Amino acid sequence: MRSEIEALLRPDLRGRSAYGAPQLDVPVALNTNENSYAVPQVVVDEITARVRAAAAGLNRYPDREATQLRTVLAAYLSATGTAVDASQVWAANGSNEVLLHLLQAFGGPGRTALGFTPAYSMHPIITTTTGTTWVDGMRGVDTEAAFGLSAASATEQVRRHRPDVVFLCSPNNPTGTALGLDVVEAVIEAAPDALVIVDEAYAEFSRPGVPSALTLLTGRPRLVVTRTMSKAFALAGARLGYLAADPDLIDALRLVRMPYHLGTQTQAVALAALAHTELMLDTVDAIKAQRDRIVSELTAMGLEPVPSDANFVLFGHLRDSHAAWQALLDRGVLVRDVGIPGYLRVSAGTPEETSAFLTAMADLAPTHKE
Amino acid sequence: MRSEIEALLRPDLRGRSAYGAPQLDVPVALNTNENSYAVPQVVVDEITARVRAAAAGLNRYPDREATQLRTVLAAYLSATGTAVDASQVWAANGSNEVLLHLLQAFGGPGRTALGFTPAYSMHPIITTTTGTTWVDGMRGVDTEAAFGLSAASATEQVRRHRPDVVFLCSPNNPTGTALGLDVVEAVIEAAPDALVIVDEAYAEFSRPGVPSALTLLTGRPRLVVTRTMSKAFALAGARLGYLAADPDLIDALRLVRMPYHLGTQTQAVALAALAHTELMLDTVDAIKAQRDRIVSELTAMGLEPVPSDANFVLFGHLRDSHAAWQALLDRGVLVRDVGIPGYLRVSAGTPEETSAFLTAMADLAPTHKE
Repeated sequence: MRSEIEALLRPDLRGRSAYGAPQLDVPVALNTNENSYAVPQVVVDEITARVRAAAAGLNRYPDREATQLRTVLAAYLSATGTAVDASQVWAANGSNEVLLHLLQAFGGPGRTALGFTPAYSMHPIITTTTGTTWVDGMRGVDTEAAFGLSAASATEQVRRHRPDVVFLCSPNNPTGTALGLDVVEAVIEAAPDALVIVDEAYAEFSRPGVPSALTLLTGRPRLVVTRTMSKAFALAGARLGYLAADPDLIDALRLVRMPYHLGTQTQAVALAALAHTELMLDTVDAIKAQRDRIVSELTAMGLEPVPSDANFVLFGHLRDSHAAWQALLDRGVLVRDVGIPGYLRVSAGTPEETSAFLTAMADLAPTHKE
Repeated sequence: MRSEIEALLRPDLRGRSAYGAPQLDVPVALNTNENSYAVPQVVVDEITARVRAAAAGLNRYPDREATQLRTVLAAYLSATGTAVDASQVWAANGSNEVLLHLLQAFGGPGRTALGFTPAYSMHPIITTTTGTTWVDGMRGVDTEAAFGLSAASATEQVRRHRPDVVFLCSPNNPTGTALGLDVVEAVIEAAPDALVIVDEAYAEFSRPGVPSALTLLTGRPRLVVTRTMSKAFALAGARLGYLAADPDLIDALRLVRMPYHLGTQTQAVALAALAHTELMLDTVDAIKAQRDRIVSELTAMGLEPVPSDANFVLFGHLRDSHAAWQALLDRGVLVRDVGIPGYLRVSAGTPEETSAFLTAMADLAPTHKE
């Protein structure tokens, strides 16, 4: 960046580099936790029909409130067991924008947000983008599980840092494991003046018996549960994130969202997918099977995968994770180096993609494991 | 908002109400400067075909750089006479988001943005949303034209306030008149450490001989020109804003944008419209004709329309602008009360919509004009 522009930049942004996974053209891309399955033809047809029906009217602004979409998202969440209505749902261009709205409304200069690292790497970026101070909390303090977070440890850290916003991520990206609801409840109690965000982008991939924080919403107006259509709904390209919370909290988001932030065609695409929810979620079981296969086969190779409730697996212990990442790439398999020494993260793809990764990894394990 | 949520809210947002024109169901809606013409069938077909082609692949993230779209937008701008390439173009969900990215990167706590009021009402909202301090500059100080802004007045105000960001709006919303480029040049010179944004959302409607600030880009790395597809391109529903600036300045925006902020279907819709640029802009001349008709007929009624380079007209002097707004609404015509006492703003619609407005206004003028 030339110095004249650099000098104009917000001081805390100087010298930073932009977020983004490398976009490399490889045979097997398992680095961004996308759903490897294409959108089914019947949904392609539904998307096409809905966009066609809306296209002539694109000269008019979209429904600023995305009322129909929020109603259908509420029905989807309600079908999972916790009744919510449209007034409790907010939607935006990806869960990143949903989180941005939350930090714009409840963060800001002089306020702090606490997350438990390692977690979703956008949490600190969104936090600091809004001028909020980020506090790096810790995982794995007093639990036997790698990267675990106990209610006691979370409570102690929240009491110590007194944040205005707390990020919990469950299932946690990049480690994969879901949090116990006791942790969520403990954090809400330990931080009586804080907004508590539970990022559940990967919730649909949870192992049996893992409950959602949606079940805690009633009577807890400071709790927000964020979701996305990018993963289980296989719609990463459509950018549709959403959240469930108290209606008054959603009113606050209207103060910071750009008016008409969600385009007509985006609302149409999301509604088309939601009209075929069962079909769209058909891939979830197949992906969970590949995820469980990754865990068991990596274990058999003498590697250490972290138990996963998501569509990816974090695994160690590698002698040199960057060297292992490069060796996989040399074999046509792109995984994610999330910056945890000795660990890499791999998305669970189709059986063929997963086999390609496991074959390469079997080849590499003897020389690369610690 | 219940007190528990209100207490969590960023202090400067407390007590605010959300931006948004009233969404009323009326026969003649001329309140949000939409393009009244539906998207033509051939473009509906193109949009449908492109979205269909992209739909199966929505499981993958979109092109984070929107490279094809930015290339085509650059070609569109270049065809207007100033060569720019894709590295000088940035796109986002509406020009509001484009402006948000600029303020996120170049504004922030401790910084100030100056605009010349009355101008686009989102400028101060976007500014304060990012924690930047807003300074209300003045129009009509030393010019005979109502709401005019001279180079001398702009220079004096910039020197006095020493802003970090300056908003110019040309053609200016809600007053309608374009700025002379001498004003833009003077502001850039008077504020040697400021980002200068020229919001040209309505540029395509300018009267003959009115130049764009695009012609000033070369050699002025602190100048940004923002545009939108909402108005001349009749795509308000698609939410596609963009800007042209120095490539290094665009690099700075990558530090604050949410990754993958622009969905695949949004890129597809915009590309479809741009593939039929000439057809999409066919309505511009018809709209300008209605705008000029509004100016001349309101003048004949003894009202005072402000000369317009946009697709709307601000007009006075009304004895009580809110009463006149209500009287028009009672006759089925919705216009915009932009909060300037004695004035209302009306969009130039189809000939029929314009006639409905002018008939109602002719009826009301004798009792409502000052």
